[in-house]
Amino acid sequence: MGKNKGILFAADVLEEDKLIEIISDVSPFISMIKIGNLLFYEHSFKIIKKIKDIISIPIIADLKLLDMPNMASRITELAVNNGVDGIIVAGAIGQEGIIACQEILRDKYLFVFTQFTHCGGLINDREADEYVKLALHLECSGVQVPATKKGRVKQIKEIVGDKLIIISCGIGTQKFYTEENYGPEIGSALIDGADYEIIGRSIYNPKLPISSPKEAALLAFEKIKNIL
Amino acid sequence: MGKNKGILFAADVLEEDKLIEIISDVSPFISMIKIGNLLFYEHSFKIIKKIKDIISIPIIADLKLLDMPNMASRITELAVNNGVDGIIVAGAIGQEGIIACQEILRDKYLFVFTQFTHCGGLINDREADEYVKLALHLECSGVQVPATKKGRVKQIKEIVGDKLIIISCGIGTQKFYTEENYGPEIGSALIDGADYEIIGRSIYNPKLPISSPKEAALLAFEKIKNIL
Repeated sequence: MGKNKGILFAADVLEEDKLIEIISDVSPFISMIKIGNLLFYEHSFKIIKKIKDIISIPIIADLKLLDMPNMASRITELAVNNGVDGIIVAGAIGQEGIIACQEILRDKYLFVFTQFTHCGGLINDREADEYVKLALHLECSGVQVPATKKGRVKQIKEIVGDKLIIISCGIGTQKFYTEENYGPEIGSALIDGADYEIIGRSIYNPKLPISSPKEAALLAFEKIKNIL
Repeated sequence: MGKNKGILFAADVLEEDKLIEIISDVSPFISMIKIGNLLFYEHSFKIIKKIKDIISIPIIADLKLLDMPNMASRITELAVNNGVDGIIVAGAIGQEGIIACQEILRDKYLFVFTQFTHCGGLINDREADEYVKLALHLECSGVQVPATKKGRVKQIKEIVGDKLIIISCGIGTQKFYTEENYGPEIGSALIDGADYEIIGRSIYNPKLPISSPKEAALLAFEKIKNIL
């Protein structure tokens, strides 16, 4: 499993035709794709194979899995049987839960979600650090770290070095609740030590003068090319 | 929304025909039904309507939702559009996440998952108490409390009184990982102050001499009848 860098596209587009169209358009510019629970609840895990048919980059199921080890194992097995290349689990799932998933995933990706991009989530830095240490101890693939929490990517990079992949969320346009906000600039988390920047809304719902997801992805790709 | 007591059946049966058959068989003896992520990943939220066609008791989607407020809102909306009567969110979702869900749910159930039945999950009593207080503060429907952690149901009952419904997990047969264990006896959490006991495996996968899910559900129902 090679360690690359670049854009992890958060494809939170509910409507299937639009989803497939956007993924096709942006695929030359992204390194991985992340599918979240909203899409799985609408389409089931079968959507993974439909995306796999049109791209060859890794598809990560962002489950934020938080279940008992036996159930975590059953869910991971279902995901793998549907063609997933990796999953994201919640840090609070704990050691036994992660091991249960790893036994099914083998060399596929397992990322540990540490904390939210917004300040309202109830996971503080101390708890997030505990999840990072657990991910190191269990030799997970990587950790998800918010770019919106100042200094966190740098801090975590110092802890994990090159042992874990850092995927960083909260880049570009965010929709916290009803209003849109702007997170750190594209490229800034990579400069701080992240390996992948999770970019969603800025690509699938670009703002004028950017006219399409394809153009947005190309611009993001150009922006980070020199950093990588 | 009336407050009742009894069995909350955890219907973790993946195969659709078997799931529908078991639910039909046990429905006279259960008060609510809980569908988890495993089934949604296999069947999508469309499975909710199929279950709704055969029973009239509340269907709770056990999402252990742990997403940003905007995404939590979109997921809750999708669940409601598919006919759900309530959802379970992870306590770490925080205040803004819960409010986002409540605005969509209105008078439907919102339960807050506090901590795991097994000791390996990384949510301690202090954090779980924080989630319970948040659920009280936000006037959620109730909280999920493990019956397996000695004294927790009693403690939480003292805190929430009759303001929150307590649904208690870890009753009867448990599959922690590969081996099966036995949690507290059916009825014990109700005695401690819970309103509903979450029972799954003991009903859908009964052990001899109990010969069927229907018989297991009837026996559980008879066992708790005198407590209620």
